[in-house]
Amino acid sequence: MKLNGKNVRPIWLDEVVNVVKVIDQRRLPHEFVVADLKTVDDVIRAIKEMVVRGAPLIGVAAAYGVFLAAVNSLKNTFRDDYLIKECNRIKSARPTAVNLTWAVDKVLSEVLKTDNAIEAIDVARHHAETIAEAEAKNCRKIGEHGLPIIEEIIRDKKDKSINLLTHCNAGWLACIEYGTATAPIYAACEKGIDVHVWVDETRPLNQGARLTAWELGKYGVRHTVITDNAGGHLMQHGMVDMVIVGTDRTSRTGDVANKIGTYLKALAAWDNNIPFYVALPSSTFDWNIADGIMEIPIEERDPEEIRYVEGISTRGVIKRVLIPPEKSPAANFAFDVTPARFVTGLITERGVCKATEQDIKRLFPEKNK
Amino acid sequence: MKLNGKNVRPIWLDEVVNVVKVIDQRRLPHEFVVADLKTVDDVIRAIKEMVVRGAPLIGVAAAYGVFLAAVNSLKNTFRDDYLIKECNRIKSARPTAVNLTWAVDKVLSEVLKTDNAIEAIDVARHHAETIAEAEAKNCRKIGEHGLPIIEEIIRDKKDKSINLLTHCNAGWLACIEYGTATAPIYAACEKGIDVHVWVDETRPLNQGARLTAWELGKYGVRHTVITDNAGGHLMQHGMVDMVIVGTDRTSRTGDVANKIGTYLKALAAWDNNIPFYVALPSSTFDWNIADGIMEIPIEERDPEEIRYVEGISTRGVIKRVLIPPEKSPAANFAFDVTPARFVTGLITERGVCKATEQDIKRLFPEKNK
Repeated sequence: MKLNGKNVRPIWLDEVVNVVKVIDQRRLPHEFVVADLKTVDDVIRAIKEMVVRGAPLIGVAAAYGVFLAAVNSLKNTFRDDYLIKECNRIKSARPTAVNLTWAVDKVLSEVLKTDNAIEAIDVARHHAETIAEAEAKNCRKIGEHGLPIIEEIIRDKKDKSINLLTHCNAGWLACIEYGTATAPIYAACEKGIDVHVWVDETRPLNQGARLTAWELGKYGVRHTVITDNAGGHLMQHGMVDMVIVGTDRTSRTGDVANKIGTYLKALAAWDNNIPFYVALPSSTFDWNIADGIMEIPIEERDPEEIRYVEGISTRGVIKRVLIPPEKSPAANFAFDVTPARFVTGLITERGVCKATEQDIKRLFPEKNK
Repeated sequence: MKLNGKNVRPIWLDEVVNVVKVIDQRRLPHEFVVADLKTVDDVIRAIKEMVVRGAPLIGVAAAYGVFLAAVNSLKNTFRDDYLIKECNRIKSARPTAVNLTWAVDKVLSEVLKTDNAIEAIDVARHHAETIAEAEAKNCRKIGEHGLPIIEEIIRDKKDKSINLLTHCNAGWLACIEYGTATAPIYAACEKGIDVHVWVDETRPLNQGARLTAWELGKYGVRHTVITDNAGGHLMQHGMVDMVIVGTDRTSRTGDVANKIGTYLKALAAWDNNIPFYVALPSSTFDWNIADGIMEIPIEERDPEEIRYVEGISTRGVIKRVLIPPEKSPAANFAFDVTPARFVTGLITERGVCKATEQDIKRLFPEKNK
């Protein structure tokens, strides 16, 4: 993504010093801070505390975590044991996004094939970078495959403009380039289509209001921040033409785990005959899961993320304020699962399919055993 | 409501000085402040700025506004013209809650029958107080009629406890006593039933997190604050037995305008076979409206209510912080309409009915012309 004339990604490797650099997404939009991840612990903390977030980016960060483990394995006699242990620690940083396990296992399996630590480091770096590049390319393809859906919708509209609604941030910040849900939006803008995006603020951590609004603003996409409560009303009154979201894990049957509240938007889209699309790279499919509601683990995070809200004060300082009574407890479920029956289609790097096992496997035939 | 041993209402009249006293609900839960309303302008401002909010309380505050207009009419030669003009100003303070117009017209029609200003003041006071007492009594009856629904639900449950979910604040703060949605909850607690309430925080103004959590905490009701996004997930996983909300205006056909986001909870309840009840005094019915979605006016409020969040700082001072980028616009629709087909039942002071014109008019036969 071009930012002030420079190409920026949310993660990159400083190869000179073997430090992983990430944009600290907790500080956006009010501060642009780059954080250094030097150890596996740094990576785990960055994933847990959501310095980096979004399924594809979590995967890439985890892959770089394996690289940092390989660097550190130089000091360790029982290299394989050490690497496996470190990888298990990385994999348990957060439970819902399947990209985490997928990326770690992908890099680890290659590293374990190497004969010595120096080679292991090279292989780990190469495969982490390969995953990053592949995810960037996947997102570009998602944009290409999503664009015709938007073109189809505006074809029937007098004013040739489109109002999309998105939840959370499935933009380039959550990925490497283009984003997943935002890729078709950016592709439509490139084509000169008049796009307006309703941005769900996405409580509790406000990734919509903070990150999606920031991204869209930087790109020059017209957008309006709304509360998570508002989408149903907008849909009832013809103000939304299409909903598009990302996902943290999608079952092979098309059930979609995504940021908490996604399910409510899918219900409203369904009730108002509005297409509800989910954009994802294939790394976000969990081929082992058939029933998303029963089988996808839903992370429960610190209730203080709900009780306190962070923003910038009138004096320009990032501050947090308490909303409910001091003694009222809160519960913080981070994701929900939208049953496949409410999903109009999945936009993947290989094309668009229905949210059914059969149609998903039409695009990914190698998964038929 | 007993508060620190004292009976407190959200509004009362100081008859000695003709000043209307209200709890400033913008400051709760962190500060308990009583505001003085001395003029019609004070009342209009208090309603607009949500010092007082909630359909029944808006009605009562407006009724006291007519009383203040009557007091001021002493100075005015053309009393009736003056009163009608002032009443029109009060009625336009907020568009959605029908109780506002209902209460103003009820008091005004009585006042216009009087022969002189002194009598007008007495009549206005009497009728404002009558409305307040009637609403308190209505809420008590709503509790009595709602209690059997809760008892019915726990009858089938092993642990005899109930998990309710509510949106916004339809508690005694929004009414005079008991509340509407909370009346059956308080009634169940009185009976010793183990009640737990999921409290939607209710963005943008957080009436759930601030007011409902505060009320329930003061009453000793177990509760947990959740984001507005969370209800669907809880319902999918059997953690909600019943949804109960208030309403700002209900069509004669059972369409329910309530705080934005209510519709999304109704959809989730419907999809998970969970009963969705709406509690209301009959003053909240709009007998002139048949199609809630098309006909109920939905207030659009200042977008800054979304962009800025107010809470208490670590130093104990009420502060506001900006969430999205400085330049990102926001849109602030305050209500949505839940179609009658998603409403299990309406709990009124006369009993429980289905959300259909026929069944509503079974309870209110006088409305059959």
